[in-house]
Amino acid sequence: MASNPLLAEFLSGSRRALAKLISAVENDGALARTLLDELYAKVGHAYRLGITGPPGAGKSTLVDQLAKTIRATGKTVGIIAVDPTSPFTGGALLGDRVRMTDISTDPGVFIRSMATRGSLGGLSQKAQDAADVLDVFGKDFVIFETVGVGQSELDVVEAADTVVVILVPESGDSVQAMKAGLMEIADIFVLNKADRDGAQRAVHELEAILHLRPAAPWNPPVSATVASHGKGIEEVWKRIQEHRDFLLQDNRLVAKRKQRLEKKIRELVSRRLKQEFWDEEARRLLSQSLDNFQNEKLSPYRVVDELMEKFKTSLQQRMEN
Amino acid sequence: MASNPLLAEFLSGSRRALAKLISAVENDGALARTLLDELYAKVGHAYRLGITGPPGAGKSTLVDQLAKTIRATGKTVGIIAVDPTSPFTGGALLGDRVRMTDISTDPGVFIRSMATRGSLGGLSQKAQDAADVLDVFGKDFVIFETVGVGQSELDVVEAADTVVVILVPESGDSVQAMKAGLMEIADIFVLNKADRDGAQRAVHELEAILHLRPAAPWNPPVSATVASHGKGIEEVWKRIQEHRDFLLQDNRLVAKRKQRLEKKIRELVSRRLKQEFWDEEARRLLSQSLDNFQNEKLSPYRVVDELMEKFKTSLQQRMEN
Repeated sequence: MASNPLLAEFLSGSRRALAKLISAVENDGALARTLLDELYAKVGHAYRLGITGPPGAGKSTLVDQLAKTIRATGKTVGIIAVDPTSPFTGGALLGDRVRMTDISTDPGVFIRSMATRGSLGGLSQKAQDAADVLDVFGKDFVIFETVGVGQSELDVVEAADTVVVILVPESGDSVQAMKAGLMEIADIFVLNKADRDGAQRAVHELEAILHLRPAAPWNPPVSATVASHGKGIEEVWKRIQEHRDFLLQDNRLVAKRKQRLEKKIRELVSRRLKQEFWDEEARRLLSQSLDNFQNEKLSPYRVVDELMEKFKTSLQQRMEN
Repeated sequence: MASNPLLAEFLSGSRRALAKLISAVENDGALARTLLDELYAKVGHAYRLGITGPPGAGKSTLVDQLAKTIRATGKTVGIIAVDPTSPFTGGALLGDRVRMTDISTDPGVFIRSMATRGSLGGLSQKAQDAADVLDVFGKDFVIFETVGVGQSELDVVEAADTVVVILVPESGDSVQAMKAGLMEIADIFVLNKADRDGAQRAVHELEAILHLRPAAPWNPPVSATVASHGKGIEEVWKRIQEHRDFLLQDNRLVAKRKQRLEKKIRELVSRRLKQEFWDEEARRLLSQSLDNFQNEKLSPYRVVDELMEKFKTSLQQRMEN
């Protein structure tokens, strides 16, 4: 029993309603909040994949191929592509994504691009909320696709059950990936463009680096692909299924999802606290101390003490009224 | 009049006391807080440089050369080198930094390495606090040196008055830098290892990318260096002085430092709010909903609502007692 006509349409399987619900989530309004509260009890069916790697590694192509492979097994797929938009480049550097038409016209596949433009944080929350919507819609798999640069992009893929990191056989690529924090989050490595020079060496380099790591219950495998020719995709799919089987043992998937939920709640709390804290009076107090900062030179720690006191007092007043 | 013997020793110019104060800042205790409150009125003398770039770009060498150049003008220098320590590599990948001995034995230079190990956020705060300490100690220049990967490292260099981004003539380096957000924060670009193949092409590529950007009051120049042979350092130093002169016009430096202070206060507020929020009861409530998450499936937004209510009530109770 849906309380809202859009929700009723959504639950009856309308793609149009699905698209509208995801837009509501992107716009982050009261409607989204109400809908998510209602939907949440049904979340948990979809298996979530995160696919990331440096610009130009061939992520979109690999995601499209993977979606085709999953579709061939009869399962449905939702794709959430997060495009980073730098304030400098305006996103123009990456160019417009051109999706393979056979995927985008398949009714069993739903693709949505989300931009990072300006949204400081909150992106990973929105991507997760969108995944929840796709999940309740009945998608068997949800794929997050994002460039592996920047914390907010890492947050997006970390919301996945299985994380696939794509690299290419270029000098220093794996070292860069390591410094960017990609090595820690990868469950599976894919060396794409494996028909290029140096591919074999790059695979060995990567495996050598991985062997430095202490043995764990799951040791990330390395697969070589040429996504543009569909080569190696079956193997990646097999690795993903193996990782899923691994997570289904010993309650690991439940534990992982619990951790993810905890992270999400903690982030939401931080955002709410900020919203409540920075009311008009707090902003006025802040701008006062900033205007005086050259004369008074109050330590920032003291300014924060004052602001905290004010926050507590005004919370108390609000509760008394 | 210093309230603390260590502070008195520090204010009389003791390097030993300086080192101790910075350690106190790193350990983030009550002592550091008291000392920073007392010192803060004297902050503002030192000019702050941020030097960043990908691993292997030659940052340490360039910083050492720059420090020598600054010392030759009779000015003193403090260096805060932030080494990222990945939980995976344990920092071993970069190897230990070997500093040039002629710099590290100069009493006019103070070098301190700070590790990122595990400190989720807070690193940039600590680096800034350490810079404040060096500032009050009387250093004319403070240099932040850090690997240009990851948000916390970007936060460190962003606390500088002038940011120098170092690149090397390797394919895709400038594109990677752009995606990593380095382009937006650079006031000056240095193409180091300019004796390598492709250096001229790399300079042109970088300049071409920079020309895509709309003209601004300050347009970042590109300098070519071979830091290991001391080549080009004088030019970099000249560019830094030009950028400083630029900031000294039209109140720009004051405005920049004001913005930096605002950012710092906002971050401190977020940390304090988190600390106050996640008391024993909140953690217990969170772990209860997490334990139930598969059965109850309360939306995370509802869990946050409950936690916020509890927070307000307990704040009120604490204030009444």
